[in-house]
Amino acid sequence: MDYRRFTEEDRVAENTTPIRVALLGAGTVGSATARLLVEQKEELGKRIGRPIELVGVACLDPDEVNYPWIDKSLLTTDTAGLCTRADIVIELIGGTTVARTFVLKAIESGASVVTANKALLAKYGPEIYQAAADKGVDIYFEAAVGGAIPFLRPLRESLVGDKVTSMLGIVNGTTNYILDEMTTKGLQFDDVLKDAQAKGYAEADPTGDIEGYDAANKAAIMATLGFHTNVTIDDVSVEGITKITADDIAAATAEHKVIKLLAVVERSEAGVSARVYPALLSDTHPLASVHGSFNAVFVKAEAADDLMFYGRGAGGDPTASAVVGDVVTEARHIAAGCTGPEIPLYNDLPFAPADASRAAFAVRFLIHDKPGVLAAIAAEFARNGVSINGVNQDLKPTAVDPGYDGEIQQLRIVTHPTDEVTLRNTVKAVQQLDFVTGEPSILRVLD
Amino acid sequence: MDYRRFTEEDRVAENTTPIRVALLGAGTVGSATARLLVEQKEELGKRIGRPIELVGVACLDPDEVNYPWIDKSLLTTDTAGLCTRADIVIELIGGTTVARTFVLKAIESGASVVTANKALLAKYGPEIYQAAADKGVDIYFEAAVGGAIPFLRPLRESLVGDKVTSMLGIVNGTTNYILDEMTTKGLQFDDVLKDAQAKGYAEADPTGDIEGYDAANKAAIMATLGFHTNVTIDDVSVEGITKITADDIAAATAEHKVIKLLAVVERSEAGVSARVYPALLSDTHPLASVHGSFNAVFVKAEAADDLMFYGRGAGGDPTASAVVGDVVTEARHIAAGCTGPEIPLYNDLPFAPADASRAAFAVRFLIHDKPGVLAAIAAEFARNGVSINGVNQDLKPTAVDPGYDGEIQQLRIVTHPTDEVTLRNTVKAVQQLDFVTGEPSILRVLD
Repeated sequence: MDYRRFTEEDRVAENTTPIRVALLGAGTVGSATARLLVEQKEELGKRIGRPIELVGVACLDPDEVNYPWIDKSLLTTDTAGLCTRADIVIELIGGTTVARTFVLKAIESGASVVTANKALLAKYGPEIYQAAADKGVDIYFEAAVGGAIPFLRPLRESLVGDKVTSMLGIVNGTTNYILDEMTTKGLQFDDVLKDAQAKGYAEADPTGDIEGYDAANKAAIMATLGFHTNVTIDDVSVEGITKITADDIAAATAEHKVIKLLAVVERSEAGVSARVYPALLSDTHPLASVHGSFNAVFVKAEAADDLMFYGRGAGGDPTASAVVGDVVTEARHIAAGCTGPEIPLYNDLPFAPADASRAAFAVRFLIHDKPGVLAAIAAEFARNGVSINGVNQDLKPTAVDPGYDGEIQQLRIVTHPTDEVTLRNTVKAVQQLDFVTGEPSILRVLD
Repeated sequence: MDYRRFTEEDRVAENTTPIRVALLGAGTVGSATARLLVEQKEELGKRIGRPIELVGVACLDPDEVNYPWIDKSLLTTDTAGLCTRADIVIELIGGTTVARTFVLKAIESGASVVTANKALLAKYGPEIYQAAADKGVDIYFEAAVGGAIPFLRPLRESLVGDKVTSMLGIVNGTTNYILDEMTTKGLQFDDVLKDAQAKGYAEADPTGDIEGYDAANKAAIMATLGFHTNVTIDDVSVEGITKITADDIAAATAEHKVIKLLAVVERSEAGVSARVYPALLSDTHPLASVHGSFNAVFVKAEAADDLMFYGRGAGGDPTASAVVGDVVTEARHIAAGCTGPEIPLYNDLPFAPADASRAAFAVRFLIHDKPGVLAAIAAEFARNGVSINGVNQDLKPTAVDPGYDGEIQQLRIVTHPTDEVTLRNTVKAVQQLDFVTGEPSILRVLD
């Protein structure tokens, strides 16, 4: 055999030099990460086979960072300088500008990188993966999708002998919490959002969560890693949960379904797709039991069949667990004198056209009821070639729904499988009818 | 930095020599593994960065192996010889005798090993892990627990920066299927077992499954990897599901609970424990929605908090997916000239005494009802210091339950948390009372 083997002598000779870890960012996740690195230092050293040492924490203002487990002498504002004196750099700054600069700087100076920055990877992932591969260093980012859930590593390493065909992810805890509260308490979106903001479960500006952009970043990363092809945030179609009403939820419950905001990535003959949209799932689907702020990703692979990964999608300690897991992996590679697998983007897969994916849809129109309404709407569906599977017109909007008057009824139509382009054209045509009012809601129905 | 870096030149120089893979065993999983290796050869080569080649399939009788994707010239009965001419040896023979011989032989000759053999690892794991570490080769065995579920690798690599405190696993598909059928159809254990055998979901000799021994092997592996300490099958306490009746299930359902056979491993101040027992779980617990032959492991870690891994626990293709994932990982290490992390058993943790773990229990007695029965039984519980949380005496055994006559009633007692030793002593004492008959059932109640 002509390949190198790591020998016992190498191990013994190298095992006393500490592996130097630099932390960029001292917020919630940063401080929790620092605590694990400092408090578990001895056990981590045993698991790595070599000591590990936190050599610096970069922050904007050292005076504002006060954690008993972070030695004040470690704090610095010289982020670029810190990047050059570490074997492993943990980027927890966030955003896509300075984070990109420092990550590339760390790679350039030969450090391996751990990051939890989904926005950075969804935008510049392929550039960063290539830079790491060219330099022969590691880049791990388990916390970027699904927080504490060990999901990206299994996808990258365990499922590597299989062919992933699709993934459905509940990857945003805020929206899952809101939909869960709407379901269990029968409340409207706006009321639950306000309550979630008051409790700190939703941010003051919740746009990134409720409009689906956070989930879209994660979808881009999932598709890139799952399908070994280049998918960025610009390739993801996004729809949030702001149009979901208490009535939509009630209708779903009546049909033994739940509404979840999903990041959906698929690979088919037609190409790959990455989308975020709210969908109806059967209440027996494993994802239906993912409640509150928990996250989960449901994976279909050709040989492995169905898999699901479940856990906390956010929070300082859970996210720090994933970050430190990555640090230990990279430290072990450094101790062994090798790197982990690159992220091979050898597939240059086309994107599936928008009309390639077929699904059943549930559409809810608000109508001024009068004779002939159903016939007119059904005719519009027929004209567009969309087959109707079920209709429910006997629904009064609940009193709490905003913008309704007593004259308005709901008409709920569930279609047979059709493509999204045709469905949306059909809905637009129906909206032109004079007795149709307000905003329709469109939900995909998944098996 | 004084550690070696793998350079681009190494990569280019080495990437054309095929990595040789030997397969021991050509049964269901073996043939499915061979198919993935042969049919996905090109894609696997891309993921590894070097070609991979199946160089031999060891079997007992080459005439009996007929799969279109296995070239007849690859078949051999010279298992030992095959082990010495491969870079990676996949052991799918099963059992703990010849499998051990060949695995150690493969390691001795410098090959990395992939195995799905839970019995082998539960008995000889530490010996085999040490042999692999001494020789500087890899040993991976994702398929040994939870079949296709990427669980052991995340435990070994992703959660390495965290501290796992407990794991609850549904790790035996046969028993989960049986309990599920009993729950949804209200049938008795024996009837479901016969039906499962007829359908091929249970083996002709189901003892290993229904008495919990299969799950016990997996518990030993889970505890060893999760707690970095040496736990073998002999250290696992085992209780199967043969005493569970349709009435136990009905009582559970009435209380919004489900009965699941669990592999439970825990680490506390008192030490580690590894047990297999049927338990009552709330029907909102994530494990409660694991149906049929699916498997799942629920993990609690200090920082990551709750995690769950879900998927197919058996079957040719799903298991082969896990096996080939391990092969690719080892092949990547070989291509990169290093090995994965060893399995460090640096903790020499004591075993927790049997009375260290406290839980609530649900006990069902069969009694000949007469005045004073409840008082006598309650007195026995009080004498042993076991506090009663709830009693239900108003239960007639269902007509289908075996061994009951019309005079017999059930008495169901749910206790406050107590230790198992005390509980079992109490149950034994109650069994001495002259109006108690038959076999009591004892179920732990988990949160």
